[in-house]
Amino acid sequence: MGALFYFYLMKAIVLPEKYARPSYVEVPQPVKSDEMETLSVKTCALNHRDLWIMKGQYAGLKYPIIPGSDACAYRGSERVVINPGMFWGVDERVQDKQFQILGLPMDGTFAERVNVPADNIYPAPEHLDDAEAAAIGLAGVTAFRALVSRCMPVQGERLLVTGIGGGVALFVLQIGLAFGLEVYVTSSRPEKLNKALAMGASGGVLYSTPEWETNLKERCSEGFDIIVDGYAGASFAKLVQLARPGGRIAVYGGTGGKMSDIVPQQIFWKQISIYGSTMGSQDDFAGFLALVNEKKLKPVIDSVYRLQNTDAAFQRMESQDQFGKIVLRVSDI
Amino acid sequence: MGALFYFYLMKAIVLPEKYARPSYVEVPQPVKSDEMETLSVKTCALNHRDLWIMKGQYAGLKYPIIPGSDACAYRGSERVVINPGMFWGVDERVQDKQFQILGLPMDGTFAERVNVPADNIYPAPEHLDDAEAAAIGLAGVTAFRALVSRCMPVQGERLLVTGIGGGVALFVLQIGLAFGLEVYVTSSRPEKLNKALAMGASGGVLYSTPEWETNLKERCSEGFDIIVDGYAGASFAKLVQLARPGGRIAVYGGTGGKMSDIVPQQIFWKQISIYGSTMGSQDDFAGFLALVNEKKLKPVIDSVYRLQNTDAAFQRMESQDQFGKIVLRVSDI
Repeated sequence: MGALFYFYLMKAIVLPEKYARPSYVEVPQPVKSDEMETLSVKTCALNHRDLWIMKGQYAGLKYPIIPGSDACAYRGSERVVINPGMFWGVDERVQDKQFQILGLPMDGTFAERVNVPADNIYPAPEHLDDAEAAAIGLAGVTAFRALVSRCMPVQGERLLVTGIGGGVALFVLQIGLAFGLEVYVTSSRPEKLNKALAMGASGGVLYSTPEWETNLKERCSEGFDIIVDGYAGASFAKLVQLARPGGRIAVYGGTGGKMSDIVPQQIFWKQISIYGSTMGSQDDFAGFLALVNEKKLKPVIDSVYRLQNTDAAFQRMESQDQFGKIVLRVSDI
Repeated sequence: MGALFYFYLMKAIVLPEKYARPSYVEVPQPVKSDEMETLSVKTCALNHRDLWIMKGQYAGLKYPIIPGSDACAYRGSERVVINPGMFWGVDERVQDKQFQILGLPMDGTFAERVNVPADNIYPAPEHLDDAEAAAIGLAGVTAFRALVSRCMPVQGERLLVTGIGGGVALFVLQIGLAFGLEVYVTSSRPEKLNKALAMGASGGVLYSTPEWETNLKERCSEGFDIIVDGYAGASFAKLVQLARPGGRIAVYGGTGGKMSDIVPQQIFWKQISIYGSTMGSQDDFAGFLALVNEKKLKPVIDSVYRLQNTDAAFQRMESQDQFGKIVLRVSDI
């Protein structure tokens, strides 16, 4: 009887090394500790972060790693969700140095069991099924902090959300509508614009056309009170131009790279505020969850895969066709 | 007896046309109206705005114009100062469309008499002489809004002020010290750094050296809680890098031109806030004046000229040698 028999094994998705595709394997279950609770994962959901870790494009990489920040799980008989931002600390303004996101460096949710600090475990909203409950964590808290905690929206204001279709952008749209905002969106795909309009957006433009900002100005001539952007890059200077006097712009991502050619006179004469925002504190997560429960918000689900088909789920994300969250079913029970 | 005799004449500085030097002439006195009070100007002070108007580099130019936004003046026997930001409106976040600055399009303070809305007239601080009282208005309210109203400093925080020597930057330094901040400065001239250190700054670096931001990092390794900048341009991306997690950056000017190569990951991961700020509301001005009175702040005076020598005063500003405000003496009485 060797040492191996002291471990219980579980099914999990492992990224074995940089650039390698996700692999469905058996690994030892996480060990319970005083600081962490062990949850049984029912469903989990992909974020772009998982894809970037697979592609080796993320800070603090380590392999092998079980990715995954989001889950619907059980603590005993209690159905729970997770705030994936751990050890934020006491300053609402910014996370502590020890802050980390579930799924790197600690093993994440793409497994039958996951360890999570007790503080980060919240009751799952009852109106959401298991797939929906898995889909709200990272994207939801990021959207809530960027739009609500940072930009402090007021009913009737005009909101522009760039790149509709991603998890964060869709939650920004839904939270914006819940706050009574008039929401406009951009996308590179006409079908994504149409879906956003069906959800309640007042208008949308294709950012792949050269005249996209002229089209937006026509739709909203006074400019936007709030803009929430996850792209940055060269188009950010145009967002500054599209902002109304007194406008607020939240930036939660930078897939478009460096921001250039921003005209400072537009920033100071219009008294623009630009807010960097990432993830969220426990207060942000609790605020988001309260809103989800009060307004019975449901995340948009793009597709559901079985855990053993995680590679297909990653391919779906890589195709950029997704509209909403990509969910993995870990256990069929 | 011609129509001319219905006007009282006064001495004034007039910018007759684009690019023309200031000219000391006799012009009709302003006519009293219900909305405006006519003040007798004792002293007034230059701002870069006046220079830009002379050079034709300002929005909404019109000539001939009497420039000047700042003054120490008399309303009857009461010694007063002026908030040069007029018709701000009710929104503390941003000025109304009808907002304007004294000295364009309305005639300004470089004259024996000036018309000002009653709301913009405040008692002159008693501890200031006439030259000092003329020097606080535009620069002071701009500095107060950018640093205090926008960045909300807390005692003990570290503040970086770029381009020390200009009127706004010097007030940011003084207000920062009054709030108990640890203040660092940049300049292109060693003698300006030394003067700032003598005023209470904790450190300073020459931004004309290529390693200026490395030098600053050595002096303040944790980064700056607050940065107040009137330059923008290519160096702004370095300010984002120098900001501490949770840091706030106020931008009140853009002489350096467009901002480029800003790394979005630094903005969102550090949860940076960038605040455009210009001029100030009546609340900002009243807050500034209360601080001046409470802390007995005195503006730094670079030099004093007689009104007839205004061209020499403009030349002094053009030389970029100034450290503090350039004042004009209108009346010797």
